[in-house]
Amino acid sequence: MTGGRDEIEALIALMARLPGLGPRSARRAVLHLISKRTQLMGPLAEAMAGVARTARECARCGNISTAPICEICEDPKRATGEICVIEDVADLWAMERGHAFKGRYHVLGGTLSALDAIGPEDLRIPDLLERVAAEGISEVILALNATVEGQTTAHYIAEALEGRGVTVTSLAQGVPIGGELDYLDDGTIQAALRARKAF
Amino acid sequence: MTGGRDEIEALIALMARLPGLGPRSARRAVLHLISKRTQLMGPLAEAMAGVARTARECARCGNISTAPICEICEDPKRATGEICVIEDVADLWAMERGHAFKGRYHVLGGTLSALDAIGPEDLRIPDLLERVAAEGISEVILALNATVEGQTTAHYIAEALEGRGVTVTSLAQGVPIGGELDYLDDGTIQAALRARKAF
Ligand SMILES: [Zn+2]
Ligand SMILES: [Zn+2]
Repeated sequence: MTGGRDEIEALIALMARLPGLGPRSARRAVLHLISKRTQLMGPLAEAMAGVARTARECARCGNISTAPICEICEDPKRATGEICVIEDVADLWAMERGHAFKGRYHVLGGTLSALDAIGPEDLRIPDLLERVAAEGISEVILALNATVEGQTTAHYIAEALEGRGVTVTSLAQGVPIGGELDYLDDGTIQAALRARKAF
Repeated sequence: MTGGRDEIEALIALMARLPGLGPRSARRAVLHLISKRTQLMGPLAEAMAGVARTARECARCGNISTAPICEICEDPKRATGEICVIEDVADLWAMERGHAFKGRYHVLGGTLSALDAIGPEDLRIPDLLERVAAEGISEVILALNATVEGQTTAHYIAEALEGRGVTVTSLAQGVPIGGELDYLDDGTIQAALRARKAF
């Protein structure tokens, strides 16, 4: 027996750890990759190695980037007075696909959860409070998911920002009860942003 | 703007070409990979590059391997007189998971299809006929999917092998109508192999 099958098995086992892929779909994916090893598998391996080497969290907002400070934070055309607070980078990407928000972001990295013992210090909440002061922010838009955890976190942040001279708003119209931002179409996100209301 | 987001977008676009992953699940997978770049993304990129470099089709049976002749064809403990004919490598893996077949394989690489203009020469059917003669094969087990195309292909091969002194059998009991091998549990495959009947 050569080691060939073992290498392929090891690859399948790694692929099966991706969200949405089980052992069976990982096998299918690997066979597909092998059948397209020049056009797809080689370039994919290279792209993955490149991103693994260079991707990091933006030190300011928590977005994923290959620079210490991400392109959104560095973009001089983005409004400096507004911060949109989202739970994770997938939600940031969902907001960007809406092309409606022209300010900057702050990625919390999750939501408060008594059950999982996740407190404000486990998220980027202290960083947010610092940014609001240091960057002269006039509006914080809470774009958290319409889940219990998301709304608990939104209330916590709104209270923490009270008396700091900043308007706190939240996405309103269009976000369905229990819905998650990353599942919404672009139009819904645009409408929700336009109709944002004082929190 | 730095090129960082572009690299990540390029990776997402490549991931979205995997079977079972759309643009949305590709984004989720890439974010997951980035969040686990040391434990998962780096090793996965490396494993993929390794397999892309070394994987090839066995020159004898069409199985995927890293050697010119695969480990099953080279294994002296496998019975030499029996060939099991399957449509693709996923089906070969499904047969191997059943641990019931101890002979060798022949991967057709698809099925005959008038609609898609796939004839015997587009599959490994001529190679199969050569192997039957050259390797002194006594039994050819047709383990093709129970689909119209699979059964058309089975009939074609059975006819082509007529008068060549070889017994042609097919998987029988346990393969559901319209079912595909790769979806069956191991026990069903074992039962179907044990109850194989003359074709
Ligand atoms: Zn940033
Ligand atoms: Zn082989």
